[in-house]
Amino acid sequence: MLYIIGLGLADERDITVKGLEAVKACERVYLEAYTSILMVDKQRLEAFYGKPVLVAHRETVESDSDEILRDADRVDVAFLVVGDPYGATTHTDLVLRARQRGISVKTIHNASIMNAVGATGLQLYNFGQTVSIVFFTDDWRPDSFYDRIAENARLGLHTLCLLDIKVREQSIENLMLGRQIFEPPRYMPASLAAQQLLEVEATRKTGICTEDALAVAVARVGSDDQLIRAGSLRQLADSDFGAPLHSLVLVGSRLHLLEADILRENAIDLDSLNAILKRNFDI
Amino acid sequence: MLYIIGLGLADERDITVKGLEAVKACERVYLEAYTSILMVDKQRLEAFYGKPVLVAHRETVESDSDEILRDADRVDVAFLVVGDPYGATTHTDLVLRARQRGISVKTIHNASIMNAVGATGLQLYNFGQTVSIVFFTDDWRPDSFYDRIAENARLGLHTLCLLDIKVREQSIENLMLGRQIFEPPRYMPASLAAQQLLEVEATRKTGICTEDALAVAVARVGSDDQLIRAGSLRQLADSDFGAPLHSLVLVGSRLHLLEADILRENAIDLDSLNAILKRNFDI
Repeated sequence: MLYIIGLGLADERDITVKGLEAVKACERVYLEAYTSILMVDKQRLEAFYGKPVLVAHRETVESDSDEILRDADRVDVAFLVVGDPYGATTHTDLVLRARQRGISVKTIHNASIMNAVGATGLQLYNFGQTVSIVFFTDDWRPDSFYDRIAENARLGLHTLCLLDIKVREQSIENLMLGRQIFEPPRYMPASLAAQQLLEVEATRKTGICTEDALAVAVARVGSDDQLIRAGSLRQLADSDFGAPLHSLVLVGSRLHLLEADILRENAIDLDSLNAILKRNFDI
Repeated sequence: MLYIIGLGLADERDITVKGLEAVKACERVYLEAYTSILMVDKQRLEAFYGKPVLVAHRETVESDSDEILRDADRVDVAFLVVGDPYGATTHTDLVLRARQRGISVKTIHNASIMNAVGATGLQLYNFGQTVSIVFFTDDWRPDSFYDRIAENARLGLHTLCLLDIKVREQSIENLMLGRQIFEPPRYMPASLAAQQLLEVEATRKTGICTEDALAVAVARVGSDDQLIRAGSLRQLADSDFGAPLHSLVLVGSRLHLLEADILRENAIDLDSLNAILKRNFDI
């Protein structure tokens, strides 16, 4: 059996009781380590599970699924995914490969940012499609996410923006020399996401991600250290929300009173939030 | 402290380790029993937690939050919610009331249908806004959800339809006589949802929820008994997917190949699914 187990959002105790029982019964345990991260390290998971955890990098899962699935028709293998297992496409791919070999697959779900974003007080019903924002470089600034945000905005819907994670990046030099030396991991902060949105708006001038557009920064959701802060995109761009992971929500015009009340509790600055609510939403 | 704890999708072992520890430390434990249900009863939860569980009905949470929040500034109180806590508005309301009294609130997240719907193989990124479909009666057929579905469809996005739950309904007679006698609970099956969608389409004739529109029925997600079946709305309307809870997904035109592959694995009838994929999606 291949168990695909969501670990939830913050630390080793966010796994479900069912998930933990499965891990304890598995012969091999892989941790998917490229679409998201927990706020604790592998050693803490190993201590909690009482067994070794093998880190599966993107290239392992995509090209070497043979090893992950080895003997899984006879023994139990766990594939751990931060959040819920079905956030990213590669896991669907692993499920399909397993089924093709006649290996049973069991999924154990958990919270992911896709539903935990409800902690902002914004209703999940009022969210449109989710987008991903990648790190801009000097010569690579893909901004198609802006079209999706605009589609949501035209319907008055909120947009959850997932922010880029770079792990196991190689410098051009190391890549060319074939050296397995990796740059330190990078996690996009909500402030940089806000900045990039303002940059795209400056070019496109669609009036959606303006300086005073209402947005919410979400940091370390599910941890004791969780931070949720509402303000203008300009305020978010100028703020520091601390350690990763961050997400960002753009607030749509269907915002209702109860949602606004919770945003006020999390205002970067209450007076300016009230001014934005009055000016942009008339509430 | 008020702990608001998600229970996940299926049974008592879907709570997180962190959530279970909190429940065990709480003086009073409430179970919210009107927006969703687990597939196990209260007795099983009580045996698992080793303490009594008080059922909180909608009227308790909305009008009698005083009792739930009693002494929560001094002792720990747990409020359990099936799925993740922030699916429904009333929980936001409870959080606000707690904060107004200076009571700390801690949320422990879990899976909900809003992210577990990824088990269909449809990518969460490709979903638009979520809608709710209520039981139609002879003289009450609110169909504004159809406008939302149409908005999603025009963008090529999938729609998750949450299906109505009726608990503690009173007959007109019992209501008028003030008798606290309740009808048996009702949970909308995916087949009825498909049928209602076809009925609305028959009136509106927008060409979105047609007989051969592609949809996916999701039943008892997260349980050993989970069932996911893809087919036309007509096929879904004519099928029986067993015990509750059910949801239904309408598939949008942005469907990509990997998503279609998983749908094929779950086809009600593979030949007719392939015909629909060819005709409606050209894949």
